[in-house]
Amino acid sequence: MAQTVRLAVLPGDGIGPEVVAEGLKVLDVVAGDLDLVVERTEYDLGARRWHATGETLPDSALEEIRGHDAILLGAVGDPSVPSGVLERGLLLRLRFALDHYVNLRPSRLLSGVASPLADPGEVDLVVVREGTEGPYTGNGGALRVGTPHEVATEVSVNTAFGVERVVRDAFARAQERPRRRLTLVHKHNVLTYAGDLWRRTVDAVAAEFPDVSTDYLHVDAATIFLVTDPSRFDVVVTDNLFGDIVTDLAAAVTGGIGLAASGNVNPTREAPSMFEPVHGSAPDIAGTGRADPTAAVLSVALLLEHLGHPQASERVVGAVAEDLRRRAGGSPRTTSQVGDAVAAALA
Amino acid sequence: MAQTVRLAVLPGDGIGPEVVAEGLKVLDVVAGDLDLVVERTEYDLGARRWHATGETLPDSALEEIRGHDAILLGAVGDPSVPSGVLERGLLLRLRFALDHYVNLRPSRLLSGVASPLADPGEVDLVVVREGTEGPYTGNGGALRVGTPHEVATEVSVNTAFGVERVVRDAFARAQERPRRRLTLVHKHNVLTYAGDLWRRTVDAVAAEFPDVSTDYLHVDAATIFLVTDPSRFDVVVTDNLFGDIVTDLAAAVTGGIGLAASGNVNPTREAPSMFEPVHGSAPDIAGTGRADPTAAVLSVALLLEHLGHPQASERVVGAVAEDLRRRAGGSPRTTSQVGDAVAAALA
Ligand SMILES: CC(C)[C@H](C(=O)O)[C@@H](O)C(=O)O
Ligand SMILES: CC(C)[C@H](C(=O)O)[C@@H](O)C(=O)O
Repeated sequence: MAQTVRLAVLPGDGIGPEVVAEGLKVLDVVAGDLDLVVERTEYDLGARRWHATGETLPDSALEEIRGHDAILLGAVGDPSVPSGVLERGLLLRLRFALDHYVNLRPSRLLSGVASPLADPGEVDLVVVREGTEGPYTGNGGALRVGTPHEVATEVSVNTAFGVERVVRDAFARAQERPRRRLTLVHKHNVLTYAGDLWRRTVDAVAAEFPDVSTDYLHVDAATIFLVTDPSRFDVVVTDNLFGDIVTDLAAAVTGGIGLAASGNVNPTREAPSMFEPVHGSAPDIAGTGRADPTAAVLSVALLLEHLGHPQASERVVGAVAEDLRRRAGGSPRTTSQVGDAVAAALA
Repeated sequence: MAQTVRLAVLPGDGIGPEVVAEGLKVLDVVAGDLDLVVERTEYDLGARRWHATGETLPDSALEEIRGHDAILLGAVGDPSVPSGVLERGLLLRLRFALDHYVNLRPSRLLSGVASPLADPGEVDLVVVREGTEGPYTGNGGALRVGTPHEVATEVSVNTAFGVERVVRDAFARAQERPRRRLTLVHKHNVLTYAGDLWRRTVDAVAAEFPDVSTDYLHVDAATIFLVTDPSRFDVVVTDNLFGDIVTDLAAAVTGGIGLAASGNVNPTREAPSMFEPVHGSAPDIAGTGRADPTAAVLSVALLLEHLGHPQASERVVGAVAEDLRRRAGGSPRTTSQVGDAVAAALA
């Protein structure tokens, strides 16, 4: 019997709609094979909507989206909108409201893909970035704005509840991988209150996973190792802001954010998880057909895995890998040519 | 007539004393040529002192140090001391008490030095990292520690006063360089209060420096460009934490933190500035003679420039560059062999 998946599609801004279209193209091929019925609802959210109505994410849309099984998002943000309005009001609102506490960001150096590193070695790491706390909560404020006495604060909020659940998730993922290694990335010698909580939590949860080895790196040192010895990393667990930084760097090292997929996962399944490329809306190349949809396609692979189809997910990754090998050194292709090629490789 | 410089020397922990000794060796050679009398006072601060007396930086030592013209510091921190005790109580206390608001970190890819990047291009950038605010203030706290209801916060504090002075310093430095380009690195789409203050400040100060061009990068994007196109950077201005991260990465890209020097500068000269390698105390290699003292020697070059001897400073950089070219591909040398070679190149 066919499984029905209710998918909320949020193409968003800039190149978002272009890459999402290719992700859906690939999803359609796989869905056909799996006897999966994908019921899509598209939501017009982002810069256009904000300019037209002043809305970022109306409560009614959030509640509708909540009724879906999963979300596919393109990218959010446009220079015509004041900074933070769409990021905080739409993207982060979704992550927080749907309790996406596991922001999952794998980085694998696929063969045929050029790394900016002279000698990258084999890179296959996953960053488990906390998604609902840290400096991303919007806590803080500003006083005497615009005067010489202005004070602006940003508050990083970290709770035992929030840290423990994401650390436990990271350990569980590490346990499933051949190397079974977990690295905590923080800056506990300066951010002593939060760092202490993260360290104690990793130590405590480690006792439940005796077969997973752990180590620790300050975030500054982690960026060094990501360029001098990226193969040392297996699973990384870190806070929301450090995770933002190290995942862009990890993506760069493994071929660029054009290839980097992510899942904003709520492991309790009490709300839909959301899959999105790590890259932004890239307004400078929107409409030119130059956006690489690979990250969106790989986000569909993460979505398939989350929906309980690990083999289909691996097939998509395999098709992408095959396409990357073939296109290595070739002339650039358009967004839809890449999507077509992956879809063809699957068929 | 001979100029007298009162130098406070804080060798610190781990490899700190080893690399400082080589820095002083080089300083002695240059001082002889300049008719500079360097009066050194050595301060025993760091892990040993803390274990012996429980002190990190006694008020009396701080006041004595304040009476000097400059400070040379090795490295601070040891695993035998709880995390943060020496960092906050000694290193950051010095930076804050002596108002080192310009944390100056140049990264130049010298010829003969191997970069982990396949195609680094010409890299010559300076990061002006704010040194007395941001998430480094120690603001924040923890509640219900050790219980499932623990909450730990870290507060980033940013003031118009603090941001403006460091931004102005960065513009002035950019104006003196051939490319005259300043990049603000922040994360204003998420950290909207602080990001807004930084952006408005850069925009306002830019009016005073019409010949300096400015641009902006989110910190995550900055890490990408540091590995895909590092030559795009000239002067970078950023907050204390982002500066910590991007300077380690910039160092890695230009040959490693073994070569990265820094100055904690108080441009008002109301208190002594402090020069130190970017690397840490590296307790794992302390005592083995394997520490590279180049960063300490280059910190001495920054010290000489600060003391008003730009030509002597350039001579030290030149001697280091010559030594790096000679040792390229050669077998590893000990800490003191490197210091000897640079001193010989100067003589
Ligand atoms: C757009 C921005 C708010 C977002 C983030 O910082 O999380 C992006 O950089 C990402 O990594 O998904
Ligand atoms: C040791 C630590 C407190 C320090 C910092 O974070 O500033 C170091 O990493 C540096 O960059 O000088």
